Amino acid sequence: MNEMPKLPKIHARRELDPGKLFTIEQLDLEFQNGQRRSYERLRSRGLGAVIVVPMQDDQTVLLVREYAAGLNHYEIGLVKGRLDTGESILEAAQRELQEEAGFAARDLVEITQLSLAPAYMTHITHVVLARDLYPSRLEGDEPERMEVVPWPLAKLRELTRREDCTEGRSIAALYIARDYIESGGNAV
Amino acid sequence: MNEMPKLPKIHARRELDPGKLFTIEQLDLEFQNGQRRSYERLRSRGLGAVIVVPMQDDQTVLLVREYAAGLNHYEIGLVKGRLDTGESILEAAQRELQEEAGFAARDLVEITQLSLAPAYMTHITHVVLARDLYPSRLEGDEPERMEVVPWPLAKLRELTRREDCTEGRSIAALYIARDYIESGGNAV
Repeated sequence: MNEMPKLPKIHARRELDPGKLFTIEQLDLEFQNGQRRSYERLRSRGLGAVIVVPMQDDQTVLLVREYAAGLNHYEIGLVKGRLDTGESILEAAQRELQEEAGFAARDLVEITQLSLAPAYMTHITHVVLARDLYPSRLEGDEPERMEVVPWPLAKLRELTRREDCTEGRSIAALYIARDYIESGGNAV
Repeated sequence: MNEMPKLPKIHARRELDPGKLFTIEQLDLEFQNGQRRSYERLRSRGLGAVIVVPMQDDQTVLLVREYAAGLNHYEIGLVKGRLDTGESILEAAQRELQEEAGFAARDLVEITQLSLAPAYMTHITHVVLARDLYPSRLEGDEPERMEVVPWPLAKLRELTRREDCTEGRSIAALYIARDYIESGGNAV
């Protein structure tokens, strides 16, 4: 793995109208015991998202290092992105894999779905296992080429102890993929 | 485990001003290669959150079943909640554990931190392992008592295959806690 890249310069920072990106919905609920509550939840405007677990071989996953604006650091994690209009889940996974890691896969399978914060977000991410890789690059809108970091699936504990591997979804997807591969790939 | 509870009735559904809950911040960035981009991120207004892994014994975790408004289903996962003003991370974990599961712990330790969506959210959750439990209930603002579901740590694969266990953070926290316990509890 290369040295940690320098963070981008922040030239400006401003607040936007949240309604551009998100809708907040309030639900008035009555539980089975008669208790009433109002709950608020965040509705995503997008078409859903994919997270890709690309296997170089049965033991090694290809991670990518990408600038993460939420935490303002470089995060090591899985390839991921949002579905474009008209795309299937596997098509989105194949595109993101080529844009972010420079590989395509001959074998793509959705192994599970993960929610982000089910208590207050409608967001769902499809987890796609990608195997039988070959080099193939598509140019996306990424500002810089991401470093690809091969990582042994046997060393997930070392990975999650790193300060630059923090995302719950990526970590969950890695463990689930490892279990899936070890069990011989039974459908989930 | 009991039968799946009936969903609450939805009496009303309305849209709110997202600015009440969230701030959207736009950053103008310049990467090391000179490329410029504007990134948007969601700033949480809260003080942070905790997720608790309560161990009944070294092999068995206590999960809770709670209505999740984002997905409108009952989700099985870990105790979690937001920090109240003036509370430490471990105090928040102890309170949430008593409110949601009816237990307190003599041994609480933060084992890692997880982000929600580091690309566009500032949100961080502290993961607290809780051991040496004893019965102790605090009344929170929950509309109904949550069912406590003991689950063997050896059966995480069976858990993640359930349709009502979807949350990336909970799943990641469970695998990380299992690795931590198996390794003899070395600091992370």
